[in-house]
Amino acid sequence: METPKYKIALIVGVGEGLSASLARLFSREGIRVALAARQIEKLGALCTETGARAFACNATDADEVERLFGLVERELGTPDLVVYNASGRARGPLVDLVPADVANAIAVSAFGGFLVAQQAAKRMLPNKHGAILFTGASASVKGYAQSSSFAMGKFALRGLAQSMARELSPQGIHVAHFVIDGGIRSKTRPDPEGHPDSMLDPDAIALSYWNVLQQPRSAWSWEVELRPWVEKF
Amino acid sequence: METPKYKIALIVGVGEGLSASLARLFSREGIRVALAARQIEKLGALCTETGARAFACNATDADEVERLFGLVERELGTPDLVVYNASGRARGPLVDLVPADVANAIAVSAFGGFLVAQQAAKRMLPNKHGAILFTGASASVKGYAQSSSFAMGKFALRGLAQSMARELSPQGIHVAHFVIDGGIRSKTRPDPEGHPDSMLDPDAIALSYWNVLQQPRSAWSWEVELRPWVEKF
Amino acid sequence: METPKYKIALIVGVGEGLSASLARLFSREGIRVALAARQIEKLGALCTETGARAFACNATDADEVERLFGLVERELGTPDLVVYNASGRARGPLVDLVPADVANAIAVSAFGGFLVAQQAAKRMLPNKHGAILFTGASASVKGYAQSSSFAMGKFALRGLAQSMARELSPQGIHVAHFVIDGGIRSKTRPDPEGHPDSMLDPDAIALSYWNVLQQPRSAWSWEVELRPWVEKF
Amino acid sequence: METPKYKIALIVGVGEGLSASLARLFSREGIRVALAARQIEKLGALCTETGARAFACNATDADEVERLFGLVERELGTPDLVVYNASGRARGPLVDLVPADVANAIAVSAFGGFLVAQQAAKRMLPNKHGAILFTGASASVKGYAQSSSFAMGKFALRGLAQSMARELSPQGIHVAHFVIDGGIRSKTRPDPEGHPDSMLDPDAIALSYWNVLQQPRSAWSWEVELRPWVEKF
Repeated sequence: METPKYKIALIVGVGEGLSASLARLFSREGIRVALAARQIEKLGALCTETGARAFACNATDADEVERLFGLVERELGTPDLVVYNASGRARGPLVDLVPADVANAIAVSAFGGFLVAQQAAKRMLPNKHGAILFTGASASVKGYAQSSSFAMGKFALRGLAQSMARELSPQGIHVAHFVIDGGIRSKTRPDPEGHPDSMLDPDAIALSYWNVLQQPRSAWSWEVELRPWVEKF
Repeated sequence: METPKYKIALIVGVGEGLSASLARLFSREGIRVALAARQIEKLGALCTETGARAFACNATDADEVERLFGLVERELGTPDLVVYNASGRARGPLVDLVPADVANAIAVSAFGGFLVAQQAAKRMLPNKHGAILFTGASASVKGYAQSSSFAMGKFALRGLAQSMARELSPQGIHVAHFVIDGGIRSKTRPDPEGHPDSMLDPDAIALSYWNVLQQPRSAWSWEVELRPWVEKF
Repeated sequence: METPKYKIALIVGVGEGLSASLARLFSREGIRVALAARQIEKLGALCTETGARAFACNATDADEVERLFGLVERELGTPDLVVYNASGRARGPLVDLVPADVANAIAVSAFGGFLVAQQAAKRMLPNKHGAILFTGASASVKGYAQSSSFAMGKFALRGLAQSMARELSPQGIHVAHFVIDGGIRSKTRPDPEGHPDSMLDPDAIALSYWNVLQQPRSAWSWEVELRPWVEKF
Repeated sequence: METPKYKIALIVGVGEGLSASLARLFSREGIRVALAARQIEKLGALCTETGARAFACNATDADEVERLFGLVERELGTPDLVVYNASGRARGPLVDLVPADVANAIAVSAFGGFLVAQQAAKRMLPNKHGAILFTGASASVKGYAQSSSFAMGKFALRGLAQSMARELSPQGIHVAHFVIDGGIRSKTRPDPEGHPDSMLDPDAIALSYWNVLQQPRSAWSWEVELRPWVEKF
């Protein structure tokens, strides 16, 4: 196995699905993996399978995020590959939303992304090396009806990613934002009967993250859209 | 004077500049105007000139915003034209930003917009009549280096506006977002010598807000870009 | 009546609908109007009503377009307001399209726009005064299935308009592109029963063109989107 | 070597640079390669190196394009991977452009893309298998001053690609558009002294084309942006 370009990965916002696929892929490629989530009890099997370490962290709390990076550094090393994968939303018509829920949705989808990205950048900039990836959604580029809190958080995260790409790329940090335009397939939410591959396979998404990470710096992507072949857009 | 299409305006986030131009224009057109700002001492002259009423309000606080709408209703009537004009930012390289400042910037630029728009929509929907306008910036559509907090707030506000336009337009509420792409001229920040009209005249911006408000519902704009004739874009 | 900002208008691509509404509005505002279309027999009533002069011209032919401007200059004066309103399309699945039809669709929607805009700009630049407006469609910003020729022409026209806005605005020429996102109402194609104002009223569209023309140069729009209040987008 | 997903590639618009990098990469991966260009004398060395076959073709001529596909089919087999790489432009201020040059620029950048894509799609649809890739530029999404003909052609090509992605993806054809946002490095145009990787390495671009081709159909990209790490955008 070649020496991987990145050595220590931190994935923030982990459940089943995309983060698990990323953990497996990174681990298979020889990268040590740290997983952070608010609840880590559910991560036992994934840790066993991939050798990853799990850390409990509320990503919307600046102190907890700083502590998280300290712990990861001590136990695995300084992360040079960070993925922000958490998001929140409050559902329903605009007039029915509870303000505190909206505030929390924005905090989880966007402010947590800032906190994590800032800690990551502080550690990557001295080496002029690292990658910071953000997971977006259809709502990152299109504000749907009855989805205002999700649009706010995801638009904000995209604004952060674009600003960071402009600021940090010339300093050697690869910043990329992925617009996942469709539902992600899972055991509990499989493709509908007769419509194969009509939902995004998380392993297929992970493959595109990986390919972006392998891009030589003369031809970097800052944004990649992914959707199933049959998805309306 | 014709009866104006809208009768009671509330402008949130008022200093000199655009909000004052809007207050003058609305007042001239026969609309009663309420102004809301965190500090209202500075608004005395504008109130005298336009007959507007000023209300102190921290737009990032749900209770204060609800109370604001109650006061405006009691003293002027239910607003059927609401403009959200506040914004905040923390300046500097990503790694130097203070998390609390970033949280505050997002709250002022975007969450306050949600709080105000929600209260506005609650009052407009029963009548299927009203307009909610948002003031954006270059940073609403382009995340600049060293401007991540401003990009986050302004992207989020645009996501809110787009989601609201999709949700509320078919219910008779005109939602529009303005991308002000350039600096706004003021007494303390005039056009540079030899470059006439190289900054946006706030009265000229206000005119475009007004024209959008006059659009018949068969041909509504949800977004309008404005920039000086000589602005690079 | 105030002296209008623009004095001689040329509208290229005229049938019923938007061009007729523009001709009536311009005429009412004291602007002399020239109409150009491939077939001008049908324009008699509109000319009578508005005092406009009609000129036959194939807008995809460079020589004819140059001749058109010469005739308009001689008979009405040099146009300082030019609207390009023609478009063409070949319908059907990609594989069924006849290449010559696609070439023609691109020529009518986009190349004709270039020819007209170039002649207009040549006459406006010496005076550093004038406006050139382009009529776009949903297809200007979204390439729909089975609509490739229309997408090609309308995307191209938008690229032209954006490039011209960057090039000519600082020389005093106002260039603007309108995204008409919905069907335009006409006598033969009225609003469906029970869905008032669900199609764009051409007079309502014309009003927004007019308002853009009145913008002071410190706050110009280069692009405006218009759609019915109930339109999905 | 694994059996490649695609077996016969046709690259249209070949000189040095990206097309040569693609030819080398495809050939190395076991794909048979056909090259088409207006002039093929210069392609001798590349053919020798990669085993590719070269075909002379004016891509703006419908008959020549149809004949090209017939020849490729007979000599190599039916192409299931087609790349359109040709572009044209007329440089200079809008008013100085020669109409015939602009028409030709649009024909080479966009209409040729349609002709090639249509022939490709006709052959791929019966098998519900194939990929059609388009090479865009900064001008595909931004119309620069003094670059109207290039903007027209590249915007149009993007409109075609987006329309085709919506139409053909659900029929199993992967359509993708690449926005190459920066200069491509070559022997005659190397990175400026002291600015390593400030131009796009054509091999790096080719790698991203390849990775898009490997995407499973549950997570396809229709558009990918690529730029050097230090590129302003």
